[in-house]
Amino acid sequence: MSRATARAHANIALIKYWGKRDTQLNLPAVSSLSLTLDRFWTETTVTWGAPADVVRVGGEAAPDGFATRALSFLDRLDPARPPVAIDTDNSFPTGAGLASSASGFAALTLAASAASGADHTTEQLSVLARQGSGSACRSLWGGFVTWRKGSLADGTDSHGSPLAPQDHWDLAMLVAVVAAGKKPIGSTVAMERTRATSPYYAEWLATSEADVDTAERAVRERNLTTLGEAMESSTFKMHATMHTARPSVNYWKPATMACIHAVEQLRSKGVEAYLTMDAGPNVKVLCNRADVEAVQSALSAHVSRVEVLLPGPAPQVTR
Amino acid sequence: MSRATARAHANIALIKYWGKRDTQLNLPAVSSLSLTLDRFWTETTVTWGAPADVVRVGGEAAPDGFATRALSFLDRLDPARPPVAIDTDNSFPTGAGLASSASGFAALTLAASAASGADHTTEQLSVLARQGSGSACRSLWGGFVTWRKGSLADGTDSHGSPLAPQDHWDLAMLVAVVAAGKKPIGSTVAMERTRATSPYYAEWLATSEADVDTAERAVRERNLTTLGEAMESSTFKMHATMHTARPSVNYWKPATMACIHAVEQLRSKGVEAYLTMDAGPNVKVLCNRADVEAVQSALSAHVSRVEVLLPGPAPQVTR
Repeated sequence: MSRATARAHANIALIKYWGKRDTQLNLPAVSSLSLTLDRFWTETTVTWGAPADVVRVGGEAAPDGFATRALSFLDRLDPARPPVAIDTDNSFPTGAGLASSASGFAALTLAASAASGADHTTEQLSVLARQGSGSACRSLWGGFVTWRKGSLADGTDSHGSPLAPQDHWDLAMLVAVVAAGKKPIGSTVAMERTRATSPYYAEWLATSEADVDTAERAVRERNLTTLGEAMESSTFKMHATMHTARPSVNYWKPATMACIHAVEQLRSKGVEAYLTMDAGPNVKVLCNRADVEAVQSALSAHVSRVEVLLPGPAPQVTR
Repeated sequence: MSRATARAHANIALIKYWGKRDTQLNLPAVSSLSLTLDRFWTETTVTWGAPADVVRVGGEAAPDGFATRALSFLDRLDPARPPVAIDTDNSFPTGAGLASSASGFAALTLAASAASGADHTTEQLSVLARQGSGSACRSLWGGFVTWRKGSLADGTDSHGSPLAPQDHWDLAMLVAVVAAGKKPIGSTVAMERTRATSPYYAEWLATSEADVDTAERAVRERNLTTLGEAMESSTFKMHATMHTARPSVNYWKPATMACIHAVEQLRSKGVEAYLTMDAGPNVKVLCNRADVEAVQSALSAHVSRVEVLLPGPAPQVTR
């Protein structure tokens, strides 16, 4: 029996991951670029060689679906694995409206690998985490991370890469929580419908790589205008593929629109703030740390909850 | 001196006109298909050979911009025209949130042509009206009208054509008035920005003709499901080209989203209702006449004003 604990942080894509080229391996149709966040993390302890498989969340037995997904992910990591105990917990405040699958699968991968005594590189761990949840492969590093889609059929070249560390740039990410409940349609189903039916999907694919290139340069040069414009273009292109799917997939809610216009207004008043939205109604706004109060105040007029986040660190593993 | 009066009705595009291939002649980049409406019309009297040019709206001197636009339009119709008196009036209720340029230029074209004693076919009149305001070329007929974009450089093959008359099909069009004020960005500017910067514009053009073909068949067969799905696809594709323009053009407001979701919910309850949106925040919903109350009730939960319209007649001219 051996044991390891890992803490991995959530991340938000500035240049979006949307569409899979292989659903079994979670291979993306586009590259993406993310920012790892400070306050939202998952901490997971894996005991390698337990009396029987058990999965606990916050000390309680995990829901069946959750336990099955975690255990079958470990089966994939090591088909000959012994029984394991998984103890996991999230720092996410209740109803924060952010997904924990990225930090969750990153932490699980790191803890399981360490507990099993495997000798994986961080890139290999990223490849493994990706198979649990695509965006998890970006939570293997802090700060800014690029996920190049890769081209190999086995997915071994589709993993995150560190672009710039946590302390590279004094930015902040605010999350306007429009709704924190279950989404009307899951993102995997929405991705697949988009791929199959949106007339704009091919162009989404064709233009995404250039967005990642632009954003990489902007991060290196700390150019918020360029990064923000590429970021907004990416999110509107992604949502446009959903809106034009048949049937249309529209995650935006009234308060989503209000926040979109609030960000436009902030910019018209000289505050550099740029938005992104995932497969849900929440609006995430990137700005200089000095502008957090102005942005928070503008968003708070439209939603009752605004989370303020800063660039986060790389994961930590303890044995 | 001779005089004629024309009444022409507004129309709403079910398959959208968005993008110009010639801005001077108002030649469209795509074909479109519209429904002429009953209660919203413009009535215009032209006196051909007046003491001096004069333009009145509702008996009062017209604003300068309006008068200039109307008179220079008549200059184009007949460069050697005599002075004219134009008296025009709209039936549109104040703040209905619908544009009067389509019915306005259709009525002006008809009245001027009749007053001048010209002998234009309806198609020729449609070509002329188009040069005043693109969508005006569809208001030369009642019921359902197709506007094929044409291919000639002089625009003589770009005009409306009657598809089915007013009494063809018992449908209704409801307008949820989200905002009736001036738009933050005019549609000609938005069209041009879209054309120049949206990565999806080419695909918008490439897929629009098939939508018109589908909608034409659906109108002939009175198939609301097929018409409605083509209609929603067209409007979401059009707005997606705007959302992905740089800078993004987003006419939707919070109540727009609420109405979009209300229409989705109506369908999930078995009410066949389908939406379209022009370059503005209002939501227009097509349904069977028998479902008007259900649709009106659903929309009224989100906006304070809902206009109920039925298919409208062809224009009338009296001398």
